[in-house]
Amino acid sequence: MYPDSLQELIQVFKYLPGIGEKTAERFAFAILELDIEKTQLFSESIENVKKKIHRCKRCNNLAEEELCTICSSSNRNFKTLCIVEDVKSVFLFEKLGTYHGLYHVLNGLISPLEGINPEDIGISQLLDRLNKEKFEELIFAFRPSIEGETTALYIKQVLNGLNIRITKLASGVPIGADMEYIDALTLERALDDRKEVT
Amino acid sequence: MYPDSLQELIQVFKYLPGIGEKTAERFAFAILELDIEKTQLFSESIENVKKKIHRCKRCNNLAEEELCTICSSSNRNFKTLCIVEDVKSVFLFEKLGTYHGLYHVLNGLISPLEGINPEDIGISQLLDRLNKEKFEELIFAFRPSIEGETTALYIKQVLNGLNIRITKLASGVPIGADMEYIDALTLERALDDRKEVT
Repeated sequence: MYPDSLQELIQVFKYLPGIGEKTAERFAFAILELDIEKTQLFSESIENVKKKIHRCKRCNNLAEEELCTICSSSNRNFKTLCIVEDVKSVFLFEKLGTYHGLYHVLNGLISPLEGINPEDIGISQLLDRLNKEKFEELIFAFRPSIEGETTALYIKQVLNGLNIRITKLASGVPIGADMEYIDALTLERALDDRKEVT
Repeated sequence: MYPDSLQELIQVFKYLPGIGEKTAERFAFAILELDIEKTQLFSESIENVKKKIHRCKRCNNLAEEELCTICSSSNRNFKTLCIVEDVKSVFLFEKLGTYHGLYHVLNGLISPLEGINPEDIGISQLLDRLNKEKFEELIFAFRPSIEGETTALYIKQVLNGLNIRITKLASGVPIGADMEYIDALTLERALDDRKEVT
């Protein structure tokens, strides 16, 4: 019903997360209305991202060179390593601007239920790195979940005996949250980990 | 903070309607995760749509050839012309599958308030066409609005004296609507245009 090329564009927009037929149609019509320069930039950007971006050899973060911009920076604290479950987490922390250590990006979290084992998420690359570089502190920054706990526990056990400080993100009541919407487990954690008012 | 090519892709996704920073980031990461074949198809589709699609010489609908698929079809009723405000409306009617006449696509509606005059929306092309092709009925299928009424009135006046039936879409209560959410004007129209129960 639509011209073939428009129909094809509608189909490819549906590759994007959460995009159904209606929104894909809106996007395709929006592309039709764009200047030719902008659509060229659009299609080139898509190609470029696939051509240029790969994983950092050291930390597994996204990189356009052999090393990512964080690993190749000389302004970072090389003694602290924040271990995250995906590249998105790196950017979340970088947006804060308050963390100056390095990162290591796993390929997800251990999940026996889904058949995801330590070797699937790149634990051995992490261990290799920990042997080569001398960190004083590891920070586990996984999402609070069974998988996060399992992964943290597993790495801690493997590192047993190594003289290294291991920490994890604090759990508790999120700032600005409405008390009645906080789930029971979070509230329990926040109560257990309560802090002295100073 | 993101690698340059990723940052660029995030920017271009913001060209799409309703897409802000967060969603553009999600889309860009989704592109990173796609197979190379799919991303190639994606970027080609965007280019193709701009290269191949233009306006039908006769009705101003989208077309890949000189005439759109509707104008070049021999299975249509050539006596009825549905006049719409944009190409999207054509596809809405075609999805119904119950209208078999032809279309004419205006470039929007007359709006004195926004400085959009009859010559801006292609009324003269419509008049040329009405002189060449002999229609028995014109259907105004504009959105119910002051602009829609103005455009309909204007065309009707210009055609004054022509022996042609002119109709417009019925206004009234939408099927399935909750009575309490129907606006007063629609309800008034529906009451005025009430029909005999048969």
